[in-house]
Amino acid sequence: MPSSEERLIKVMKALADGTRLQLFKEIASRKQMTCTEVGEISDLAQPTVSHHLKLLVDAGLVNTGKNGRFVILSVNKEMTSELSEFLKNIINTEK
Amino acid sequence: MPSSEERLIKVMKALADGTRLQLFKEIASRKQMTCTEVGEISDLAQPTVSHHLKLLVDAGLVNTGKNGRFVILSVNKEMTSELSEFLKNIINTEK
Repeated sequence: MPSSEERLIKVMKALADGTRLQLFKEIASRKQMTCTEVGEISDLAQPTVSHHLKLLVDAGLVNTGKNGRFVILSVNKEMTSELSEFLKNIINTEK
Repeated sequence: MPSSEERLIKVMKALADGTRLQLFKEIASRKQMTCTEVGEISDLAQPTVSHHLKLLVDAGLVNTGKNGRFVILSVNKEMTSELSEFLKNIINTEK
């Protein structure tokens, strides 16, 4: 299997969870968010939020940066777009 | 969570597996395949293939039909396209 497919499988695993999908959508709907802000919009405990964010970051769906003492999260649009295109190409490969 | 999102989470779970993704791509690359044909192109035992196909069918990614005594499989392009569009829309929702 090509390594790009392995990466996209990891992306789909990360998104195939209701909590992570909601967090991902929230981050995507803004330009950027801090971890604290993500925790505030969620009913979940901070360690749970951190766990889910880590999986999104590890899959390459969310980028992290630093702004002073704040960790800034933003969506990796290229990765999301790559998965979207990958799926579209699969159904356009009919021989 | 909207029921459409729950459905798409199920779709991503089904595709987030190397074996199922390969089977899905094979079926997509032809107009239709029988279960036997899918088994023939795979190194896996037939029960394993059947298990993976069942998950793809249950997720709505693969349609089944009958042609005499053969079960015919084809890809549900609409469902795949819906997931592709859903992902694209997420990254275009920036406020």
